[in-house]
Amino acid sequence: MRTLGVVLFPEFELLDVFGPLEVFGNRVVQHHYRVCTVAETAGPVASAQGPRAIADHAFASCPPLDVLLVPGGMGTRREVDHAVVTRWIAARAADAELVLSVCTGAALLARAGLLDGRRATTNKLSFDWVVSQGPLVEWVHKARWVEDGKFVTSSGVSAGIDMSLAVIAKTVDAATASELARIMEYTRHTDPADDPFARR
Amino acid sequence: MRTLGVVLFPEFELLDVFGPLEVFGNRVVQHHYRVCTVAETAGPVASAQGPRAIADHAFASCPPLDVLLVPGGMGTRREVDHAVVTRWIAARAADAELVLSVCTGAALLARAGLLDGRRATTNKLSFDWVVSQGPLVEWVHKARWVEDGKFVTSSGVSAGIDMSLAVIAKTVDAATASELARIMEYTRHTDPADDPFARR
Repeated sequence: MRTLGVVLFPEFELLDVFGPLEVFGNRVVQHHYRVCTVAETAGPVASAQGPRAIADHAFASCPPLDVLLVPGGMGTRREVDHAVVTRWIAARAADAELVLSVCTGAALLARAGLLDGRRATTNKLSFDWVVSQGPLVEWVHKARWVEDGKFVTSSGVSAGIDMSLAVIAKTVDAATASELARIMEYTRHTDPADDPFARR
Repeated sequence: MRTLGVVLFPEFELLDVFGPLEVFGNRVVQHHYRVCTVAETAGPVASAQGPRAIADHAFASCPPLDVLLVPGGMGTRREVDHAVVTRWIAARAADAELVLSVCTGAALLARAGLLDGRRATTNKLSFDWVVSQGPLVEWVHKARWVEDGKFVTSSGVSAGIDMSLAVIAKTVDAATASELARIMEYTRHTDPADDPFARR
């Protein structure tokens, strides 16, 4: 049984958070994963789209996390300079089995110093900005997601769902990942290099 | 400017709610749509996957809605017998320009008496149960989404994203819908009859 925690901050991208939580929180994997949300302070956090979610835990009182997921969203433009957030991510990443990011969440991993010398990706519309946050990272432009050691970084928004299903295939089994895609009626990308959204 | 309201209830399906809100709450359509969440009581509502969202409004104090969206999730099995919910949906649907459902949300529209004599669809795994909730509805098995008058019902979970983009194409324009899919890096189904998840 693994615990997956998703970091929330003001102006997080809704689908970056709730696509993966739809996967990891699904009853099909309830004996493999429990999910929670965490923010600097427990309680309501407003998304980039407006609707608010609740952080179950504050950073200081968050239980141990086997899997840490960092979403993107406009808020990352501010949070990269927020040392309380990047230091907490760095500390929890050190103890985690897997560290995942969606979209510009990779900028937070980069600024936490976790991706230097590693291969990683992010979404296409903010690619240049994210690259500027991690000059020592080997950024991969054409990738749906990239795995390097315990770090799995994914491209924009719905790529987080593909990455999550790939992590289920790896940590549970391939049949369960396929079953989840069927339940969600989601047309999945199973090849991490298959990126229809990279610049031609 | 339209106001879109999403109904929340205990054990709502995360992606049924936050896929469409990712679309309608996106900054690209911020001059066309404002979004809000509504439940019997304002405040936290736990999803089927566990994470909690906040209902901005209680039923009694919800502002007028141009577009009403009803999600699915395990909670619908209980809510179909909850007259406070189905009556509120029926009343608000009467005043709305468009009424959308995702997944088993169609069962709530059916029990609210809104779909009798109309064509509608729902997700494949719960198809028989949803059909039992609306014996006078013309249920369409093979459809990604179905439009009949002001009602647009979609299949399982991620079909709600396709339906939402189709509604953007109709109410804003086709280019904006395409741009949203690109921003979300979402591989879209643009044909409502293209349903890869229907039984062969």
